[in-house]
Amino acid sequence: MGKTGSNVPFLALTMGDPAGVGPEIITGAWPGLFYSGKAEQPPLSGPRPAAIPKSRPVVFGHPEIIRRAAILRGMDIAVAEIDSLDELRRIDYRRHFGPKKIPCLKTVPDTLLDFAPAEISRAGGEAAWLSLNRGIDAALAGDVAAIVTAPLNKKSLNLAGHHYPGHTEILAERCGVKNFGMMLFLGPGENLASRTGLSVVHVTLHTAMKNVFAQITRKSVLEKIYLLRDFARIMKGSAPKIGVCALNCHNGENGLFGDEEIRKIAPAVRKAAADGVDVSGPYPSDTLMKAAQEGAYDGIVAMIHDQGHIAVKLMGMFRAVNVTLGLPIIRTSVAHGTAFDRAWRGTATNAGMFEAVRVAVKMAHAANR
Amino acid sequence: MGKTGSNVPFLALTMGDPAGVGPEIITGAWPGLFYSGKAEQPPLSGPRPAAIPKSRPVVFGHPEIIRRAAILRGMDIAVAEIDSLDELRRIDYRRHFGPKKIPCLKTVPDTLLDFAPAEISRAGGEAAWLSLNRGIDAALAGDVAAIVTAPLNKKSLNLAGHHYPGHTEILAERCGVKNFGMMLFLGPGENLASRTGLSVVHVTLHTAMKNVFAQITRKSVLEKIYLLRDFARIMKGSAPKIGVCALNCHNGENGLFGDEEIRKIAPAVRKAAADGVDVSGPYPSDTLMKAAQEGAYDGIVAMIHDQGHIAVKLMGMFRAVNVTLGLPIIRTSVAHGTAFDRAWRGTATNAGMFEAVRVAVKMAHAANR
Repeated sequence: MGKTGSNVPFLALTMGDPAGVGPEIITGAWPGLFYSGKAEQPPLSGPRPAAIPKSRPVVFGHPEIIRRAAILRGMDIAVAEIDSLDELRRIDYRRHFGPKKIPCLKTVPDTLLDFAPAEISRAGGEAAWLSLNRGIDAALAGDVAAIVTAPLNKKSLNLAGHHYPGHTEILAERCGVKNFGMMLFLGPGENLASRTGLSVVHVTLHTAMKNVFAQITRKSVLEKIYLLRDFARIMKGSAPKIGVCALNCHNGENGLFGDEEIRKIAPAVRKAAADGVDVSGPYPSDTLMKAAQEGAYDGIVAMIHDQGHIAVKLMGMFRAVNVTLGLPIIRTSVAHGTAFDRAWRGTATNAGMFEAVRVAVKMAHAANR
Repeated sequence: MGKTGSNVPFLALTMGDPAGVGPEIITGAWPGLFYSGKAEQPPLSGPRPAAIPKSRPVVFGHPEIIRRAAILRGMDIAVAEIDSLDELRRIDYRRHFGPKKIPCLKTVPDTLLDFAPAEISRAGGEAAWLSLNRGIDAALAGDVAAIVTAPLNKKSLNLAGHHYPGHTEILAERCGVKNFGMMLFLGPGENLASRTGLSVVHVTLHTAMKNVFAQITRKSVLEKIYLLRDFARIMKGSAPKIGVCALNCHNGENGLFGDEEIRKIAPAVRKAAADGVDVSGPYPSDTLMKAAQEGAYDGIVAMIHDQGHIAVKLMGMFRAVNVTLGLPIIRTSVAHGTAFDRAWRGTATNAGMFEAVRVAVKMAHAANR
């Protein structure tokens, strides 16, 4: 678990764009992060969360902004500025911090405090950039076991001179990685019958629809089945049941509506099944997603971005977690954006941030085994 | 409203495959079809439905099968065999039939009564074929104002020697129509915030993904916007607000992930908006579907089959209605299949059949204005 010798992982919670919902979902989720499931220790606000393994979360941002968000939410919580992670490692985290006190590493200079809440701004983009990069530095150095990122705004980021479509591309570049996979994880809750959650991986992701035919191969499907199997096993605690989507409607209708299912997807599924993975398909994506909603699967392999994203957003957009796999570091995120239409009212749903931390902690413990 | 002179439309409810859920969803939905919204006239079973305009529904099937389904459901309801629609037209429907008495035109010979419940069979396929074709005959002749179809099973249909992928292709062939549109309609209820429902039309439908690029044109998108506008206006009772999906993920990210949005979809949306349609887009399909779930739109134009079908199935598969537009007759259907895994237990959800009738009646009244 990094350089500490302890098995309680440090986590960096990067603040994201301060003009968005990041600060308020971090503060809102915070008390629940220490909830061990014991009755005498209820969370300070919001619905009672699931118990999660112990962690030592640290906000990477600006203490003043986090303080403002806590006041906005009417929370009785203090924010302590810390100078370095070295300082944090030397002290007893549990004595100094907890549900009522947030340690915040100052990654944003005071000159950026004049951002306009709920608006696109250069200051907001630069603040998000700085916090994210400090998080990546700390993870690559082994000072934190994982980073959990609050949303940034692409337009603000561009205004600040950083030209990336989003977090994932920054992470890939900083980590020197070309192949990575995006997993969406939806924890148990309303609109999903599974009690252990649903993981969805994408064979193709941020690319034009015209390019997916070349990118969907027996090999790429097989890789994603294994990636999903390994991740979903961590979340479920046992071997997951996996369903694989077709690319074409009606599963290609026996070749009438396309043959990618016959030539590429089905052979990959057969290979993985022969290797002992509990996997079946391909199935028509609409009926498969409905079956997943009803709890029939632990994991779904989607062929294209929108198959997975439409399904997960409709089943629980605000508690969904985005996990970037294939990096040398653990990184999770909420699955929604800065939500300027709801930000800085103190009412943003923090379920996604809580879940993103829960997933990161489970991954960190699994990696440490 | 057909040959009757009355403004209370006759409707043919075709029984579908008797081995599937058709008979039980027809009987289950039946009493609600006469519910006018008055408190003194509650439906016999199930949740209190929305009031729907008056109609004169007739089952096209076999009285004995409908009777068995009513017994299975424990319903106090009689089934009267009628010899012809002529007979039905000459009598006072409301005096003879209603919530407790179903008129059934015998479209299936007794020789097909030996179908095995919840299984694929030639007999089931032939029975579905006969009932559907009698319904189409009656609609084309003007004897009924609309047909509402219960599910058939493609494999059973094929066993009976009728080689079609489904209802739609049979309808198109019988009506001599090549261009038709599939609308999915989801009425108000759980998992959809709109109180007037959501209509989803598809620019491309039953085709390989490789073919959608040629099929998505400024013209085809524009046609579907108008088709949706006209249909959703009937369901809403006023001008609908329409959102249009992108084909590529992230709305093509300004051309980075494909240019169909820039070259074809956006110009079609601009043209329709200039013509006075309340339409906007294209938008990323995942965020647009989430906004539709939250009630922000009355209608959605989907570019491909699975965009619309994943969304509607997750928002309410068992109350969704499938409407075939572009035919010379009115035809609606439940959006699910024969569901052999649930059939003949007497527990199948009948919300979809009720909704399919409600949509058909509203369309029939609108056509008669």
